[in-house]
Amino acid sequence: MNYPGGIKKEKATKANTTYDSNLSHKNRGMTLESEINITNEYYREIDKAYIYKKPTPIKIVKVDYPSRDKAKIKEAYFTVPSTTDYNGLYKGKYIDFEAKETKSKTAFALTNIHPHQIEHLKNIDNHKGIAFLIVRFTSLNETYLLPAKDLLSYIKESSKKSIPINLFREKAYLLKDNYMPRIDYLKIVDILIGGKNNA
Amino acid sequence: MNYPGGIKKEKATKANTTYDSNLSHKNRGMTLESEINITNEYYREIDKAYIYKKPTPIKIVKVDYPSRDKAKIKEAYFTVPSTTDYNGLYKGKYIDFEAKETKSKTAFALTNIHPHQIEHLKNIDNHKGIAFLIVRFTSLNETYLLPAKDLLSYIKESSKKSIPINLFREKAYLLKDNYMPRIDYLKIVDILIGGKNNA
Repeated sequence: MNYPGGIKKEKATKANTTYDSNLSHKNRGMTLESEINITNEYYREIDKAYIYKKPTPIKIVKVDYPSRDKAKIKEAYFTVPSTTDYNGLYKGKYIDFEAKETKSKTAFALTNIHPHQIEHLKNIDNHKGIAFLIVRFTSLNETYLLPAKDLLSYIKESSKKSIPINLFREKAYLLKDNYMPRIDYLKIVDILIGGKNNA
Repeated sequence: MNYPGGIKKEKATKANTTYDSNLSHKNRGMTLESEINITNEYYREIDKAYIYKKPTPIKIVKVDYPSRDKAKIKEAYFTVPSTTDYNGLYKGKYIDFEAKETKSKTAFALTNIHPHQIEHLKNIDNHKGIAFLIVRFTSLNETYLLPAKDLLSYIKESSKKSIPINLFREKAYLLKDNYMPRIDYLKIVDILIGGKNNA
């Protein structure tokens, strides 16, 4: 059954909000965020990589101290993140990426990434970090790893406000769902490391 | 004037709580956290390194949506961090550290670092990241960078629950206050990188 109003929503949902991820997506399988978190846990368990999701940035306004050691936050607001959601260490390399879901079948809207996040990916890429985007087209059930270099050159060359699905199909790496690890994106990172001067 | 009750407190204050750092420390100069944040901003401005403080981890319990785009967190709690507070990229290397202040003049109590943070520093060190601790003895006005290797071998060899100041004076690197950058810890990181196999 289709409910166009709900399903056609163009805006990508942020793949990283912790507090509601299990509530709002339970009818359509695991969220990209959950799958990445499970994958990162698995990587840590097998001592392969240490990559974590950063906590959601929050501006705290009011805190209560009902007892000496217990602080209760009574008023706080979500703030705009200045970096990406995931970073860590793999084979001595600095890894940095952002993960997003979109319901669109045709394109990924660039409004889903904050300008300073794009700037951040550029800085990481310039300083020999491994930077990329993981984008899931939920309606197509396709998940891609797009290297920051390709993202940045697309933004530089195009005036469009979205990246067409075809660019993902041509330039990005398809990430297939596995049992374990759920989304084996380090397999692609190995290719990215191998392709560069493995300094 | 001395107020023994307040001043002799052995427990180190966490150097990374954002919301009260300016309130509680205004009488004794800048907090270590503020100085590290200013230093990291400066490093970014001169395009030297991209090292950030992670947001404080929080468990969100209740959120209100007074309007469509505005979420107000009404109930949340601080949670125990599973990693360190600062990480990032410098010269293609993964940098990872924790910063703490202590009022003690004689030793740094190991209870100030969570066991999984120590485990995390060990993992980072094992996987060729640059891991360390920055500790400020506020009463002595001495700030040290202690490499994770030295921290870990001390913990392994000693059964003590604190690291004596003499170990810092012997094994760690003294970080002097400058004007700009405020605490030039990357100068020491250069030594650490140079000392290892610069892989």
